Amino acid sequence: MADTTTTNPPVDFRTDPARYKHWTLAFDGPVATLTMDVREDGGLRPGYELKLNSYDLGVDIELYDALQRLRFEHPEVGAVILTSGKERVFCAGANIRMLGQSSHGFKVNFCKFTNETRNAMEEASAESRQVWITAVNGPCAGGGYELALATEWIVMADDGNTAVSLPEVPLLAVLPGTGGLTRLVDKRKVRRDRADFFCTTEEGVKGKRAVEWSLVDEVVPRSRLTETARQRATELAAKTDRPRAARGVALTPLARTIEGDRVAYTHVSCALDRRRGLAEITVAAPAAMPPADPAAALAQGAAFWPLAVARELDDVILHLRTNEEPIGLWVFHTRGHADRVEAYDRLLLDHEGDWFLREVRLYLKRVLKRIDVSSRSVFALIEPGSCFAGTLLELALAADRSFMLDGTLDDKPAPTLRLTGANFGAYPMINGLSRLAARFLKEPGRVDDLKGRVGGDLDAGAAAEAGLVTFTPDDIDWEDEVRQALEARAAFSPDALTGMEASLRFGGPETLETKIFGRLSAWQNWIFQRPNAVGPKGALQVYGTGERSDFDRRRV
Amino acid sequence: MADTTTTNPPVDFRTDPARYKHWTLAFDGPVATLTMDVREDGGLRPGYELKLNSYDLGVDIELYDALQRLRFEHPEVGAVILTSGKERVFCAGANIRMLGQSSHGFKVNFCKFTNETRNAMEEASAESRQVWITAVNGPCAGGGYELALATEWIVMADDGNTAVSLPEVPLLAVLPGTGGLTRLVDKRKVRRDRADFFCTTEEGVKGKRAVEWSLVDEVVPRSRLTETARQRATELAAKTDRPRAARGVALTPLARTIEGDRVAYTHVSCALDRRRGLAEITVAAPAAMPPADPAAALAQGAAFWPLAVARELDDVILHLRTNEEPIGLWVFHTRGHADRVEAYDRLLLDHEGDWFLREVRLYLKRVLKRIDVSSRSVFALIEPGSCFAGTLLELALAADRSFMLDGTLDDKPAPTLRLTGANFGAYPMINGLSRLAARFLKEPGRVDDLKGRVGGDLDAGAAAEAGLVTFTPDDIDWEDEVRQALEARAAFSPDALTGMEASLRFGGPETLETKIFGRLSAWQNWIFQRPNAVGPKGALQVYGTGERSDFDRRRV
Repeated sequence: MADTTTTNPPVDFRTDPARYKHWTLAFDGPVATLTMDVREDGGLRPGYELKLNSYDLGVDIELYDALQRLRFEHPEVGAVILTSGKERVFCAGANIRMLGQSSHGFKVNFCKFTNETRNAMEEASAESRQVWITAVNGPCAGGGYELALATEWIVMADDGNTAVSLPEVPLLAVLPGTGGLTRLVDKRKVRRDRADFFCTTEEGVKGKRAVEWSLVDEVVPRSRLTETARQRATELAAKTDRPRAARGVALTPLARTIEGDRVAYTHVSCALDRRRGLAEITVAAPAAMPPADPAAALAQGAAFWPLAVARELDDVILHLRTNEEPIGLWVFHTRGHADRVEAYDRLLLDHEGDWFLREVRLYLKRVLKRIDVSSRSVFALIEPGSCFAGTLLELALAADRSFMLDGTLDDKPAPTLRLTGANFGAYPMINGLSRLAARFLKEPGRVDDLKGRVGGDLDAGAAAEAGLVTFTPDDIDWEDEVRQALEARAAFSPDALTGMEASLRFGGPETLETKIFGRLSAWQNWIFQRPNAVGPKGALQVYGTGERSDFDRRRV
Repeated sequence: MADTTTTNPPVDFRTDPARYKHWTLAFDGPVATLTMDVREDGGLRPGYELKLNSYDLGVDIELYDALQRLRFEHPEVGAVILTSGKERVFCAGANIRMLGQSSHGFKVNFCKFTNETRNAMEEASAESRQVWITAVNGPCAGGGYELALATEWIVMADDGNTAVSLPEVPLLAVLPGTGGLTRLVDKRKVRRDRADFFCTTEEGVKGKRAVEWSLVDEVVPRSRLTETARQRATELAAKTDRPRAARGVALTPLARTIEGDRVAYTHVSCALDRRRGLAEITVAAPAAMPPADPAAALAQGAAFWPLAVARELDDVILHLRTNEEPIGLWVFHTRGHADRVEAYDRLLLDHEGDWFLREVRLYLKRVLKRIDVSSRSVFALIEPGSCFAGTLLELALAADRSFMLDGTLDDKPAPTLRLTGANFGAYPMINGLSRLAARFLKEPGRVDDLKGRVGGDLDAGAAAEAGLVTFTPDDIDWEDEVRQALEARAAFSPDALTGMEASLRFGGPETLETKIFGRLSAWQNWIFQRPNAVGPKGALQVYGTGERSDFDRRRV
């Protein structure tokens, strides 16, 4: 199996509509239409053709970009219609030849990113009040149907040719990898025996049965599909609270330099230590106090600090995940003035109804969630000069472990932490809890107690007492203790750490998202390792060759 | 890797205390003590020594038997102390050489069974009111600590030598496989960063820190350990509602014959079709109406039909799982009189407070849960002469798919289904829902509507209308449709089916158990496939050889 992650150039997640190969965006007042028209020869990597509107990571990077721009650049849009630009197919899902030639790690990471994008579509519908619907205008298979499942209304052509299907199990011996099984039974609440039949039926289900089984919401004659989708979108857009007349914020090109083992943006930088297998990520607090009000924030556009930080963190996380697989430990540092972060947090929280500030908060939420579900160990180092306050404190709360210096070091002042209102629910994890609530599952009352500490500076003693940090070595122990912890982490099996972290990070309640990342993804990862899928005679390998799979029939 | 499932004699799950090699049971009024004293040369298979109270499947089969006998044979016992009979160790967990020489399928199945037993310990504490506690009298590592975690109170010796630990990640590059990670953060609600540290620390945590971190409930000087455990057990036993003076029910030897491809018990039989990869399991309704009251039921002892059926189903499921891996599809049939099943169900439900009838119901619940979490496809065929009523209807509701003949066939009468009170919560799944509630997640009101149908016979039309069956072919289509469905199922990848079924069977809420079977097990299965654990240089393989693991450092 070719290792597509090391033999190919790094993947760049930055793009813009002018560079799209596979999607077009059209706007008509409060309704946008996003049309998938995948260029067959436009694959991210050589070796496969993107037939039948099948997709690879490159197609999904554009989808993600479109989603971001719809939210930030188009406050006037209250509903998005997702449809296909091909005459005879909606979408055939992830490209199978691409999967067949990808390494295990690449496949798993690809599924994670596509999952995050579909979750973000659902978040857009629920929280940005920009509701996504699907007009299924041709066969809609596998990942194609999973895209539709991530929208809130599915209208399908009733034309004898158009059906929805999840043919992965019968055709490829893998699972629908992008939340399909979970959304079937948990979001759409399809009866489990019908779901079982549906997921083993290559040709899928069409027409009235698709509605009766709750696989789609509505079928209409092909001639009425566009009109019906338009009507539903208009109805949904009428209910949005997004402002019709507001000006959007252009997501201007993200400045990034990569020099050797150093990646740098305006507020975020990242230094790789390949020998020790770690990335030191430093996030800078704002250089000044925040703008006075939402209008002034909007005027700053993409330079508005919380938005800029979200974009930079987002990009560095995606870059590290995809292009730096052997870097198993991310160490977060911060620097700057807690007062400024606290003031920015207050601006975000004091204007929850403002569409732009809401979008910024939701974006930060999504980026922090990416950290939680990354298959990397995460440490935070709270040192002199650091600024783990409010929004930036979430980085330490997201860490598997944090170390805070107790006292001064080399005459530099003792570090402190600061809670702000943003730590109490602004950035829920995928399980729906704030990181503080998840931390104190055993003593939920502590979260309320901590509200009384908002705005105060907590030194190491106070932070440990409050349960906010893991270890607080003094200046004598600091260097050795931190070094040993980093080295020990690097020595463990990366796989065991991934499974352990996925299990320990999400105590408490479960949601659609935890089920997708925790359960469905783990099963898919397992299947992606099994000879029945990826062995020489496995279904993914023989697909399209005319050969038949030769399965080991033992049930595990 | 030796394939221990095909080169060895079949595993027999039937045992009794007279044959135990590894455990002793002692009784003192309302307190029982179960002592683990594993015989080093008593392994189920050759090739490893069970040092340091480490365990293999054979040790766990005895533990399971002890648990069952405590519940049925000892109504007077209200608390069970779990401890070690070794002078210097509590339990070192699953035997690593045994794991190293086991096939993937054997390891996964072993973990499933051990998980079910630990879940049954927790159910005994919560629902049988026979509360388990642990007296940790020596190092308690890995699966040893997971055993303790499945009890409700852990008292540990504070002697400088005794610690709890989960050293799997640092030592073996696998996860604690028996619910440990989930119970840490979800049951004991250990703070996630402390759990992270604990799970990467070979030597574990002892003394006061273990209590402060909520890893154990109490530490006492070694000299006071037995006395303290005894005191806690006596306090807990004082709160039970189990009867002090009642007579228990002896779990007499289970009669089973295996002839060729046929396994037969009194009420359950199973015919294997190896060519088609399926097992046809037939369960017979009772031969007569039930005894008049709980006392008469008790007098029947192990012959009481619901108990006998539970034991037989339990054994056949464990047998098929462990000894018949290539049999991927279990097809349930029933036969007999619905009136009798309904009458038995009424007896069970009308006397919920009776300790014996409660035990019988809980046992049926556990057996039905085993079906849900089995990595086998499950179909139900509802044919003329069948008896899918009440408790036996649960088999059809547990199925991934059911087929009910619509009308007569060969002059035999049309089959019917019957709901009884037992279908409305007597046998919750691992997600806490009745199978009916799980079936109608989308329309919960249907469950209430169905209560009005209790006791009536539903033909295929009515059953389909009620949503209780998947397909209802008529006599012309029956044979072909069923045959095709069985053949199609057998052709799919066993692994993909396992992942699909695990995802579709448990919509709705999540519990400790769904997290263990759905998430933790899936991650463990994945890790059990990874070269970093099981490759030639993987940690499981080199353990004890003095060699170092050579990990692929890429994070997935």
